[in-house]
Amino acid sequence: MNPILIDVLRGRTVESTHTGALAIVDASGAVHTALGDIDRPIFPRSAVKMLQALPLVASGAAEAFGLTDAELSLACASHSGEPEHVATAAGVLTKLGLDVNALECGTQWPSREPVLKGMVARGEHATALHNNCSGKHSGFVCLACLMARNAGAEPTEFARGYVAAEHPVMREVTAALSATTGVDAERAPRGTDGCSIPTYALPLRSLAMAFARCGTGHGLSDGHARAARRLRQAVAAAPFMVAGTDRFDTRVMQALGERLFCKIGAEGVYCAALPELGLGVALKIDDGAARAAEAAMAAVARALLKTEDELLSGYSHLQLRNWRGMDVGALRPADALTRALGAG
Amino acid sequence: MNPILIDVLRGRTVESTHTGALAIVDASGAVHTALGDIDRPIFPRSAVKMLQALPLVASGAAEAFGLTDAELSLACASHSGEPEHVATAAGVLTKLGLDVNALECGTQWPSREPVLKGMVARGEHATALHNNCSGKHSGFVCLACLMARNAGAEPTEFARGYVAAEHPVMREVTAALSATTGVDAERAPRGTDGCSIPTYALPLRSLAMAFARCGTGHGLSDGHARAARRLRQAVAAAPFMVAGTDRFDTRVMQALGERLFCKIGAEGVYCAALPELGLGVALKIDDGAARAAEAAMAAVARALLKTEDELLSGYSHLQLRNWRGMDVGALRPADALTRALGAG
Repeated sequence: MNPILIDVLRGRTVESTHTGALAIVDASGAVHTALGDIDRPIFPRSAVKMLQALPLVASGAAEAFGLTDAELSLACASHSGEPEHVATAAGVLTKLGLDVNALECGTQWPSREPVLKGMVARGEHATALHNNCSGKHSGFVCLACLMARNAGAEPTEFARGYVAAEHPVMREVTAALSATTGVDAERAPRGTDGCSIPTYALPLRSLAMAFARCGTGHGLSDGHARAARRLRQAVAAAPFMVAGTDRFDTRVMQALGERLFCKIGAEGVYCAALPELGLGVALKIDDGAARAAEAAMAAVARALLKTEDELLSGYSHLQLRNWRGMDVGALRPADALTRALGAG
Repeated sequence: MNPILIDVLRGRTVESTHTGALAIVDASGAVHTALGDIDRPIFPRSAVKMLQALPLVASGAAEAFGLTDAELSLACASHSGEPEHVATAAGVLTKLGLDVNALECGTQWPSREPVLKGMVARGEHATALHNNCSGKHSGFVCLACLMARNAGAEPTEFARGYVAAEHPVMREVTAALSATTGVDAERAPRGTDGCSIPTYALPLRSLAMAFARCGTGHGLSDGHARAARRLRQAVAAAPFMVAGTDRFDTRVMQALGERLFCKIGAEGVYCAALPELGLGVALKIDDGAARAAEAAMAAVARALLKTEDELLSGYSHLQLRNWRGMDVGALRPADALTRALGAG
């Protein structure tokens, strides 16, 4: 069993605990820190959106259609469905001569409650543009349009069904995952993600190495190295697009800029790159809890960057309040995590 | 470490796991089934609302103010804030000559999204009546009114501050918890619950015994035995009030009536009474996940009642769908739980 990474306290008593595994690895695969089983394949879900966006840039599609920093950041995003996110995704499709009907991610209401309430109050309805993955999917459609152009095919026709594993677009995306992680994703356990594309189970060790490579360029093809650099710079330049108001990834990258690229995935996954240290991070909370994944990622970033940043400690030691705003408890890194990071 | 109780699959691969502990005990404390550590104190949260409502009935307050089945069911509820719940809580306060200002549970928007959206569309705002605990708190205020009458005190004045551990109302509530579980709650680790009342950490073994006692009357004072019977009958007669539309507790008790009393608590807790078997159940998912607590409770109820009920198997093997409605995975009872229940 994996060790406890995060404790949840109510008063002074531990009420709940979150076990998990953590890999901190360099671009050659050398392990800096390992906690728990880092070789068991886990579904990285949305934590690898930057890896999935590499073909968008490396193919030349992003340049051909003139994608901006904001649009590239959104291609790596799990956004909150705020108006700026929706408008940016729609803008990408407009550049392609397409609209929301090209998206195959499904309809999702914005996760940010004030935005959802505003839409309801105005009698508006959610669309695929509000789906947290609409930026990633707009990127897939952009890649499809370049591939269609190169093949002399009609773009809408060519793009249709791009979420399927066998589609040329998804083959490129999966190939990028394999190339950066060093694991043949086509042979890995496969599931279907929330937004209908395939997700492949890969070891934390390999995922962490892929992010170390994306942070440094080492071990990547020239095309992927340039694409990773472009995407990291885009997210650092437009961190609001990668998540949204009051979201961990947005706030942390607003504060730290290119020092840290980090991205949450569903079911308790986090991946990150720390270019100045040449390290990549991948962690999975066994039970899938986002609260614990964020707290663990904050503790890792704080320890590795040797920063006393209050924003990070606010997440690693998140205060819990009840309906009347009373402090009722807190998260905290558990002993195993604290020791591993102290010794790292 | 506790064993895995629930697996979460994506495709055919286990994506996440939930460890926990389970106690199935009779009214004398004899253990029918134990899985994991059933002696470590855990915060039962809202899973013990029926125990907390015993003084409301045993004191004569429920009778003095003419509370109905629906109002007593709501006193045991974590409801979804639907119009019927809100109206019923308001009705109790009206009977007492009071209003929403008497409630100290804090404001919470309804958990049921269509209800929340309807309120927003109509420009309405949430109040303490929408708080999932408003029924329990109305019950506390009802008890306060009887105590005030007996003491010749002014009710509003007497009730004020009823959420504090030292208030006469909360002392009665805590005494009921101690009497039914056989553990002195005043000496147990204390935290503050979401609705601002104290919550005391008690062993699953003792919690399960308390529910076996409430299901059978054995081991309880005559007053508590009658009160427990009255509350179980009220919830079985008005199961909508104890939770709400599409909620586990409501649906299962609509189907099974008095054969099963069950109640979820925050942070992955479930308690239940099975009167025909003389057994009580208490379980805690270590990480606090409600999805796993419901799945485990469904598996327990299915095994103990030897029913092939599709409603229960729909929860124990919950299908997971993505934004386009595709089946992407499922929950399932893990081997340790299946074995323990098979052998039970």
